[in-house]
Amino acid sequence: MSQIYDRVALIGLGLIASSMFWAIKRAGLAGEVTGYARSEETRETARRIGLCDKVYDTAKDAVKDADLVVLCVPVGVMGAVAADLAPALKPGATLTDVGSVKRQVISDVTPHLSDDIHFVPAHPLAGTEHSGPESGFAELFDNRWCLLITDDTTDRKAADDLAAFWRGLGSMVEEMDADHHDLVLAVTSHTPHLIAYTMVGVADDLRRVSESEVIKYSASGFRDFTRIAASDPTMWRDVFLNNKDATLEILGRFTEELFALQRAIRRGDGDHLHAYFTRTRAIRRGIIEAGQDTDAPDFGRGKAQ
Amino acid sequence: MSQIYDRVALIGLGLIASSMFWAIKRAGLAGEVTGYARSEETRETARRIGLCDKVYDTAKDAVKDADLVVLCVPVGVMGAVAADLAPALKPGATLTDVGSVKRQVISDVTPHLSDDIHFVPAHPLAGTEHSGPESGFAELFDNRWCLLITDDTTDRKAADDLAAFWRGLGSMVEEMDADHHDLVLAVTSHTPHLIAYTMVGVADDLRRVSESEVIKYSASGFRDFTRIAASDPTMWRDVFLNNKDATLEILGRFTEELFALQRAIRRGDGDHLHAYFTRTRAIRRGIIEAGQDTDAPDFGRGKAQ
Repeated sequence: MSQIYDRVALIGLGLIASSMFWAIKRAGLAGEVTGYARSEETRETARRIGLCDKVYDTAKDAVKDADLVVLCVPVGVMGAVAADLAPALKPGATLTDVGSVKRQVISDVTPHLSDDIHFVPAHPLAGTEHSGPESGFAELFDNRWCLLITDDTTDRKAADDLAAFWRGLGSMVEEMDADHHDLVLAVTSHTPHLIAYTMVGVADDLRRVSESEVIKYSASGFRDFTRIAASDPTMWRDVFLNNKDATLEILGRFTEELFALQRAIRRGDGDHLHAYFTRTRAIRRGIIEAGQDTDAPDFGRGKAQ
Repeated sequence: MSQIYDRVALIGLGLIASSMFWAIKRAGLAGEVTGYARSEETRETARRIGLCDKVYDTAKDAVKDADLVVLCVPVGVMGAVAADLAPALKPGATLTDVGSVKRQVISDVTPHLSDDIHFVPAHPLAGTEHSGPESGFAELFDNRWCLLITDDTTDRKAADDLAAFWRGLGSMVEEMDADHHDLVLAVTSHTPHLIAYTMVGVADDLRRVSESEVIKYSASGFRDFTRIAASDPTMWRDVFLNNKDATLEILGRFTEELFALQRAIRRGDGDHLHAYFTRTRAIRRGIIEAGQDTDAPDFGRGKAQ
């Protein structure tokens, strides 16, 4: 892999930025990587563990002379962070982000940018339940999708370079527009997360089953929910506040279906349940065939011991 | 580990029974293991792969002289299977099952048993999304809980032997009564499965997002739902039909909480969302500390490639 940018600036130094840094170094994608985090503690941690070639105390200093600036901050503060650093951006630089919501981020960020900045929003579909500068690892994006948001106003050279950069980080790259992205993510990520959070909250709140029982017996299904319900609360609050319409639409569909199944249980309609449960098996097979999960029968067990 | 029973009969030869067989052999827990399956195809597969020391064409022949008989059939047919084989049970034998619902199984099975049979229902909290006689493996129960259903009418010797047997299979054993079991499982397993099935069904049905997109981008959360929504449809139909009350109770709590979160999204109440998402993180930490899942940051990725 060869160098794509002379200087890359990572703004916000959590799981995604720290993983990007290690993956940039693994592949030699940038001459120099600078970084900035709002919290002094995070900046000090980054300096201690060698995260970024240089960590600056202000975003403006970090982005100076950078060819690519990556906003790795929660969706809710993208606009404010962009407003702060925009005056220091190098003319001709590419600005991108890694937020889980795109339409709102574009609305919040674009007004602060001059015409000589190429804004190409992006969303790497990768993560773990861990957060912070020490949680990153170079393999996070390997074999995972990164979605670039493009339309007919996108600078083609900037988008192509950014796509090559993400492929260098290990990702597979696809382009789509912002509205479609937000709907796809509402289905595949945002609504599943909200549902998982809800189920974990219900279990936590149930007085007749102790928390220790919920924890002990979690391997029977509940465990898979707790994994995604342990993600960063600030990130997820911002996702739901900023992808409100698509999430509420999918939630509406979800409750409609859930009520139909609930009614089948109440009426003892086994045929309805069996047909529904048979249909959902096919999607699982598709995911395994697409290489997005493992089919290993002892799933999770070996490592849990 | 030493032998606990001279002869064990496995009735129904799917994932659980086949895993039990390999685990019995691993630990030397029985002198001989017999088996029976309703389908001739399953019996032939079992004979071909050496599953059970002897496979019989009728349940009555399989249970003859057995000290322990294990019903490994869907919850909905436990009663009929017990009625069929009960006349052939050896006086003093222990009968158990592996069903995911206990109150209804006890109601269905008990009337067919004479007083000299010790019925001790059990439920190993272990499984994969795979089913059938070829899906079993000896490690399935390692480090997983097995719940024995006991009350003041339980024969103590029979229960203690069964507990030792399950520990020999690799499980940790706990005892509780049937109603509490059904509520605990409604929270930790049955409702999560129903919700996962629902979410996968919604995604499958959505016209504006293609199935290939759902599959490609599933790693962002949806994937964890598809894993549990790929389980055996007959087993799960029977679970919901037979643990109706507890499941409907937990579903009621779930929709109540979901509506509160939905309202918070609609009103833009970030504080409510953030507080809820913070609370649910603690349960996740408890599960990892209890050894029921792994904390590895590259979860699932290594094996998926």
